[in-house]
Amino acid sequence: MEKLEMLYEGKAKKIYSTEDTDKVIVEYKDDATAFNGEKKGQISEKGKLNAKISTIFFELLEEKGIPTHLVEQLNETDVLTKKLDIILVEVVMRNIAAGSIAKRLGLEEGTELKKPVLEFYYKSDELGDPMINEYHIYAEELATKEELDMIKDLAFKINEILVEFLADKGIDLVDFKLEFGKGADGQVYLGDEISPDTCRFWDSKTKKKLDKDRFRRDLGEVEGAYQEILRRLEA
Amino acid sequence: MEKLEMLYEGKAKKIYSTEDTDKVIVEYKDDATAFNGEKKGQISEKGKLNAKISTIFFELLEEKGIPTHLVEQLNETDVLTKKLDIILVEVVMRNIAAGSIAKRLGLEEGTELKKPVLEFYYKSDELGDPMINEYHIYAEELATKEELDMIKDLAFKINEILVEFLADKGIDLVDFKLEFGKGADGQVYLGDEISPDTCRFWDSKTKKKLDKDRFRRDLGEVEGAYQEILRRLEA
Ligand SMILES: Nc1ncnc2c1ncn2[C@@H]1O[C@H](COP(=O)(O)OP(=O)(O)O)[C@@H](O)[C@H]1O
Ligand SMILES: Nc1ncnc2c1ncn2[C@@H]1O[C@H](COP(=O)(O)OP(=O)(O)O)[C@@H](O)[C@H]1O
Ligand SMILES: [Mg+2]
Ligand SMILES: [Mg+2]
Repeated sequence: MEKLEMLYEGKAKKIYSTEDTDKVIVEYKDDATAFNGEKKGQISEKGKLNAKISTIFFELLEEKGIPTHLVEQLNETDVLTKKLDIILVEVVMRNIAAGSIAKRLGLEEGTELKKPVLEFYYKSDELGDPMINEYHIYAEELATKEELDMIKDLAFKINEILVEFLADKGIDLVDFKLEFGKGADGQVYLGDEISPDTCRFWDSKTKKKLDKDRFRRDLGEVEGAYQEILRRLEA
Repeated sequence: MEKLEMLYEGKAKKIYSTEDTDKVIVEYKDDATAFNGEKKGQISEKGKLNAKISTIFFELLEEKGIPTHLVEQLNETDVLTKKLDIILVEVVMRNIAAGSIAKRLGLEEGTELKKPVLEFYYKSDELGDPMINEYHIYAEELATKEELDMIKDLAFKINEILVEFLADKGIDLVDFKLEFGKGADGQVYLGDEISPDTCRFWDSKTKKKLDKDRFRRDLGEVEGAYQEILRRLEA
């Protein structure tokens, strides 16, 4: 399958049309951004690392019965996927307090949450991705109740699958962001990516951060952390 | 029933114990605050006006089958209520965009929401009353699923009752805040107050604000607006 036209260039990926109108090619870039685009940089090899890491997670989820956009990885940076009509709601799942939830609830970073927490954010660069709830979603008609019930169910299932899988690799899954969309058949699929750009991964023993927080907070060894994640997933 | 000990002094009310350990006396004050206590002032006669206005709303809700803390108004500023163990979750119901939701969703003030929107806020002066969702509530054990299902159901019912009642009085119910608590019998009751301090009321024709936004935004005629609400409720 060949790339035809570039349909969209985002902060971390480019999306290309293909001869199959129901499929797109997702090209992973080395570009890194944080704080709603205010901080910009590059993480060398990130495109390749995230294409591979995300594919491993999506293959695992497919195996466990989660409907995802994955078709197949085409080469080091390019992945063929179902073309989705992305639902403008980002879903965040959290197991351990870090980032905004620590501030919101007055919890120390690292506090284990008594129950996994799901959060919705309005995917809008203009509005700065504000946190929203189900009722905002219905009032703004971002998704239907049926779609949202499906998305919530999938998000909790995905969390369970990933937590278990990663625990085995010595990684704590602190939190992660998901995007869903509707395929040509009208069904809901998991889209976008699952990678150190979109998850917080901590080493289970040392609690060392192995994710984009190293870039956000200038902790150094950014590429090394992404490589370490891939190494453990492939072990 | 006599006031015994002052149990709590809040921003707008004082709570007193009584000889019946399951009941308290709520005394309404003239003090007004806004922006999480940053702006402070007095609205003359507010205590009396809100005690009366809130009692009218609570009597209406009781009549319509909503379980509330109201026992009876004792005098101009004092209301006898069931003593509640207040659930630390403020419930906001919105019909028209104003205040934080206008900013959050990029809507012009006055935009009618396609569906009523319910929002939860963590009642914590320290944290600045952050917006939270159901999953935060479960993780922080602020309420159980049963309590929250009851609260959501009551909030939407209360909204319907108040919208209809107020439309008849030429008032648009833009939004309002509710607090719930558990009584001595373990049941969930509507507590706190419903008044121009806790609601946005707009004149249906002129859209003139008849609520605490006149104080927040220094629009003048604050006491007159509260009086106008009481006048219409009694008409
Ligand atoms: N299967 C898919 N079909 C269509 N669009 C997709 C698919 N998967 C992800 N996208 C979208 O591709 C865009 C590019 O990704 P990214 O660079 O991460 O963008 P952003 O800057 O919006 O985060 C995003 O808007 C994402 O929602
Ligand atoms: N029936 C009740 N029993 C016990 N406490 C109540 C009852 N109704 C309201 N309260 C509480 O009384 C306190 C005083 O009210 P208020 O002055 O509005 O306080 P605040 O400054 O917390 O908003 C609030 O904390 C409110 O939750
Ligand atoms: Mg993205
Ligand atoms: Mg109050």
